[in-house]
Amino acid sequence: MDDEQTKIIKNDRFASFMGIELVKMETGYAMAKMEVLEKHLNGVNMIQGGAIFTLADFAFAAAANASGQVTVGLNANIVYFKASKGKTLIAEAKEVSASAKIAHYNVDVFNESKDYIAQVNITGYKKNKKID
Amino acid sequence: MDDEQTKIIKNDRFASFMGIELVKMETGYAMAKMEVLEKHLNGVNMIQGGAIFTLADFAFAAAANASGQVTVGLNANIVYFKASKGKTLIAEAKEVSASAKIAHYNVDVFNESKDYIAQVNITGYKKNKKID
Amino acid sequence: MDDEQTKIIKNDRFASFMGIELVKMETGYAMAKMEVLEKHLNGVNMIQGGAIFTLADFAFAAAANASGQVTVGLNANIVYFKASKGKTLIAEAKEVSASAKIAHYNVDVFNESKDYIAQVNITGYKKNKKID
Amino acid sequence: MDDEQTKIIKNDRFASFMGIELVKMETGYAMAKMEVLEKHLNGVNMIQGGAIFTLADFAFAAAANASGQVTVGLNANIVYFKASKGKTLIAEAKEVSASAKIAHYNVDVFNESKDYIAQVNITGYKKNKKID
Repeated sequence: MDDEQTKIIKNDRFASFMGIELVKMETGYAMAKMEVLEKHLNGVNMIQGGAIFTLADFAFAAAANASGQVTVGLNANIVYFKASKGKTLIAEAKEVSASAKIAHYNVDVFNESKDYIAQVNITGYKKNKKID
Repeated sequence: MDDEQTKIIKNDRFASFMGIELVKMETGYAMAKMEVLEKHLNGVNMIQGGAIFTLADFAFAAAANASGQVTVGLNANIVYFKASKGKTLIAEAKEVSASAKIAHYNVDVFNESKDYIAQVNITGYKKNKKID
Repeated sequence: MDDEQTKIIKNDRFASFMGIELVKMETGYAMAKMEVLEKHLNGVNMIQGGAIFTLADFAFAAAANASGQVTVGLNANIVYFKASKGKTLIAEAKEVSASAKIAHYNVDVFNESKDYIAQVNITGYKKNKKID
Repeated sequence: MDDEQTKIIKNDRFASFMGIELVKMETGYAMAKMEVLEKHLNGVNMIQGGAIFTLADFAFAAAANASGQVTVGLNANIVYFKASKGKTLIAEAKEVSASAKIAHYNVDVFNESKDYIAQVNITGYKKNKKID
């Protein structure tokens, strides 16, 4: 991973806007974290599902684009295991399998107490395009 | 739907933070919209998947909580049909089936040109709790 | 659709084994049906989820392969709306969007009373290979 | 797990019809296997997705019903990692989280060479009903 790959990930304005931080990024693996603030809560004072999803999706994007080939999500499935009570959420994305055009990722979301908050499965499509 | 039900939805701070607006809300149905701004874009200048997901999840929450019974998402599946080129995204949530404890929703996301951008299927769990 | 495309679908031995019948098949659309027999039931006398899934998956395969290009499923999401009490299940697969390599399908499963039993979303990958 | 719990699982006629065998069953965990035969193949000579799904769904049902409380699937998401070339498929279902009414399971499907073929995430609903 060189500066160009990092740049595309740092250029994710929605992730920045939400306060998501990239912790680690290598080909097929990434970790991201987010401090849970009041702005991430829904009407019943739980972390909004979309905030958890976005954190996971960002970790996927970092892992899938680290090699320099642009990869976009085709679909994603999120399962919420428990409501998080912590102050931080951490998402870890791992490539499970990949072919020339398709890559499947599992993203696990934990809080700082290692409670398993959610799992997101994402299938990505590798475009014929290098990051530049 | 009375003021209390509206309040819980208006109290969704993550949706407000993102600029999501509630257009319509009744039992089993809701519509929400969002102007697409630079802050919603990812590193390759597409709308971040999490922004689309959050809009859909908010429409689901409005539709599912309109009756006054607190309903939380158990899981959700999003399929991205095409990259949106428009300035506005609109999500329409409809209850497909419901029993005493479980409700299934389909949420369709369009842009202002009626391009079909994404579909989100969400299964919710009805808690033994009224909104107050 | 010519004889070659029909042959690949008729050659689905698992569908035949289960008693699934192709009703209609054209590019991007197919309908299949199955008489519900005792062999399709699970331990609590409901139609086994896998039987419903297989019917939907077969309808997807017929619709997606009708053009003559081999398309395989990447992933699928099934939501069960209600337990079917009928004698017949009918699955209708429709292409929602498609690019050169990827196609997204929605498959709706009904019984003979038009009860909406399940929805299956399937994403397929188009191989560089013609049916022959 | 006593004889009654085993009976409900052994009574799954669709699994028997397909040649699925229960290997292990305890509360929150089960393993099932299936010899891959010609009857499980689709029109392009791959194992039909529905056959893989059914094996996984059966392992889920065994794990989720082992405690004696009837649990039914609400929805399921399957991701196909690679086409299996082996003679046997093995599904292992594990409970990831559970509350009074809801249980989330991950089911991993392997072949005899430990190739990771598919993952299935299933959310189940616990009925107010004991197996008898």
